[in-house]
Amino acid sequence: MSEQVQNRPVKITDTTFRDAHQSLIATRMKTEEMLPIAEKMDQVGFYSMEVWGGATFDACLRFLKEDPWERLRKLRAAIKNTKLQMLLRGQNILGYRHYADDVVEYFVQKSIANGIDIIRIFDALNDARNLETAIKATKKEKGHAQVAISYTLSEVHTLEYYVKLAKQFENMGADSICIKDMAGLLLPYDSYELVSALKQAVKIPIELHGHYTSGVVAMTYMKGVEAGADIIDTAMSPFSMGTSQPATEVMVETFRGTPYDSGLNQEILSEIAEYFRPLREKAMEEGLLDPKVLGVDIKTLMYQVPGGMLSNLVSQLKKQNAEDRFYEVLQEIPRVRADFGYPPLVTPSSQIVGTQAVLNVLMNQRYKMVTKESKALVRGEYGKTPVPISEEVRKMVIGDEEPITCRPADLLEPELEKIEAEMKQYKEQDEDVLSYALFPQVAEEFFKYRQAQKTKVDPALADTANKVYPV
Amino acid sequence: MSEQVQNRPVKITDTTFRDAHQSLIATRMKTEEMLPIAEKMDQVGFYSMEVWGGATFDACLRFLKEDPWERLRKLRAAIKNTKLQMLLRGQNILGYRHYADDVVEYFVQKSIANGIDIIRIFDALNDARNLETAIKATKKEKGHAQVAISYTLSEVHTLEYYVKLAKQFENMGADSICIKDMAGLLLPYDSYELVSALKQAVKIPIELHGHYTSGVVAMTYMKGVEAGADIIDTAMSPFSMGTSQPATEVMVETFRGTPYDSGLNQEILSEIAEYFRPLREKAMEEGLLDPKVLGVDIKTLMYQVPGGMLSNLVSQLKKQNAEDRFYEVLQEIPRVRADFGYPPLVTPSSQIVGTQAVLNVLMNQRYKMVTKESKALVRGEYGKTPVPISEEVRKMVIGDEEPITCRPADLLEPELEKIEAEMKQYKEQDEDVLSYALFPQVAEEFFKYRQAQKTKVDPALADTANKVYPV
Ligand SMILES: [Co+2]
Ligand SMILES: [Co+2]
Repeated sequence: MSEQVQNRPVKITDTTFRDAHQSLIATRMKTEEMLPIAEKMDQVGFYSMEVWGGATFDACLRFLKEDPWERLRKLRAAIKNTKLQMLLRGQNILGYRHYADDVVEYFVQKSIANGIDIIRIFDALNDARNLETAIKATKKEKGHAQVAISYTLSEVHTLEYYVKLAKQFENMGADSICIKDMAGLLLPYDSYELVSALKQAVKIPIELHGHYTSGVVAMTYMKGVEAGADIIDTAMSPFSMGTSQPATEVMVETFRGTPYDSGLNQEILSEIAEYFRPLREKAMEEGLLDPKVLGVDIKTLMYQVPGGMLSNLVSQLKKQNAEDRFYEVLQEIPRVRADFGYPPLVTPSSQIVGTQAVLNVLMNQRYKMVTKESKALVRGEYGKTPVPISEEVRKMVIGDEEPITCRPADLLEPELEKIEAEMKQYKEQDEDVLSYALFPQVAEEFFKYRQAQKTKVDPALADTANKVYPV
Repeated sequence: MSEQVQNRPVKITDTTFRDAHQSLIATRMKTEEMLPIAEKMDQVGFYSMEVWGGATFDACLRFLKEDPWERLRKLRAAIKNTKLQMLLRGQNILGYRHYADDVVEYFVQKSIANGIDIIRIFDALNDARNLETAIKATKKEKGHAQVAISYTLSEVHTLEYYVKLAKQFENMGADSICIKDMAGLLLPYDSYELVSALKQAVKIPIELHGHYTSGVVAMTYMKGVEAGADIIDTAMSPFSMGTSQPATEVMVETFRGTPYDSGLNQEILSEIAEYFRPLREKAMEEGLLDPKVLGVDIKTLMYQVPGGMLSNLVSQLKKQNAEDRFYEVLQEIPRVRADFGYPPLVTPSSQIVGTQAVLNVLMNQRYKMVTKESKALVRGEYGKTPVPISEEVRKMVIGDEEPITCRPADLLEPELEKIEAEMKQYKEQDEDVLSYALFPQVAEEFFKYRQAQKTKVDPALADTANKVYPV
């Protein structure tokens, strides 16, 4: 080491059971693939394991025919010592619309009751009002409310902007701050500066979350840790890198013997990696893990837009036989983004800005055609954009319509009761109401499947003499 | 940046045409796949491009049916501005035995005459005497002699050891020093210390060469550059990572806007990456690029032995139905290595030490059975080990035989004339003698193939009237 540094062990959040398989194999890891290794992972001494939320809830119900709540309870039973962590999209919970506060509160309550310790709460626009209810609910249930900054690049996303945001989150009761860099945009030396600034501004711990897509994230963690970051998000090596996180073992080894030594046991990690390696190979053979996602591509850094957005643009243009206009669209994107108040380019704003840029170019006139999502964004339905949208742009996009200036969820009536009434014929546990609230059709199908399974596994229920079968 | 640092742009050696495809696709990139992009790569402003030597020479002759000398001339013609670099195994040149000095000298002369600017010269044992002739020959031909330290971990491979080695190489006339870490053993913060120490000890530039196998190398480069490393070895992203080097574009972007900014143009790099991406995909489809080599595995760091050596051990033990003795062998390895004077664990010493450790364990008695390679190593035939081998071990391995204490090549008579006599019927250019010297059988087959191709492509040579065909 060049400088004398106080020992400051880095803490590790392992994402293998949530973000890693969501990023690499379309969220298809099954509970039965997690349980055999869960106790061993509990022995490692991770600061936390991210095991739930994000897309796993939907994937459980839709593709794996699993009850996500049951998964959580099983993981909690197997992982007795390590904190369990989940990802929650603020007022969107785990779905794609804004839910009323009573749903958010109930969801948080049930998540913690079923075993979650730490809830990472984020909003695509970094609108604190969309985080409020989830933060309060988490605190009320004695959970750890980690509030995430959706990291992006733009002329308004300055150090000052992020410092202000972090202070705001701390004041709202955040127990820690996460720098959530879903697109791999945070460069190593910028990470040093950002973390340094945040550490000066707030007292609560700083966690780094990034993806390997652009190839820099391990270095970004390293410089962030040198600047004082407390926790980093990693995944066991067979489910690391590419569109996932850096490898747990690699970051542990990197800091070994330095002031940032995590102290984790490499022998145990190695046994765990051995367990996951055949799962990786199986996923590769089945085509679930596409080797293309294992490469790195810095286009996202060059154009400051996520990789997925670029490939969407290409396919949109292809459909219109207008691939030759790709570079025009690339230039239009930052203009649309400025018009729309510089939203971070993450779901859903990345799609909204991208599609609008394509339309602006193809129509040869800006905002001649406007999508309903663009209108919703400009109307304020997603929340407040980082800077206000100008009168002029608003006129072009929504004409004389009145924009929303309040917290979007303030316009929503409590909806839990209505939802429960709709689905009560399927209800086997309280949590089913929440599954249905988030994904009504998918949950209903799952409930039917669950009933049918019971019939199958319990043939005693069939009254064979009368040829009557329960449905 | 945390500290004020003088601008010190990092230089980039791109390895795509040599180490990258040697590491990822068994050295199978064809000249015709290189030439369409060679001029564009020349425009980037790389410090150098490693395009020749290593296993490429053998692979050209053996698998690609290409004349390696012709490849070099074509690349030189296309790459007019960038320095061309090659890798040379000291007295082994590009083959697997020690060659007489006249062959080494002639090979170096012809390499430079055909277009090479920089020769990276290394020896598996770091025995300076095995580098002497190649260094002198390079200087005589006005080439840049880069001398590489074969990096390894052991109790005798201390900072002091490496500093002493670097000074020795500088005194021998090295124009630069390379830290050659073939197994990915150099950890980031150790890199900082090692480079700092070397920069203090020598005046010539320091280049870092590593592989992504253990997942740390990008960070190792970063800390090395912060400590003063001048040049780093990278590969274009589609042929980067896994068993290859870090991605060129990633390292360029990492240092952009910092005191280490390489200044390279990301737009040009992006165009070049676009060219290579389909080649990567083709190699993947054909099974030439095994996705397994794209992962990371820190076993090599845990056991301080290269990954390839571990898999060799497993397969040796499997053949003997003795897989249960794997961990005994792992413990025996450092003991054999100590007995044998701490050779770096690279080819060929990795195989020698590994096999001897297996024998020692399986025979339940150390050195009861000794391979002929172990004998050769102990006899000094590969050169001087980092520390002398004890009387006791020598007795056990070679009994009363007299070890070699001189430079191994001093025992070799000049051999060029004899070699030329053997192959002169095939000789079409001076360089053919060298191809034959290095790989007699393979070269002979290639020469026959070359003749046959000519017959085919030049039917005018056939005297059809008299039904006589040239052979
Ligand atoms: Co993520
Ligand atoms: Co190499």
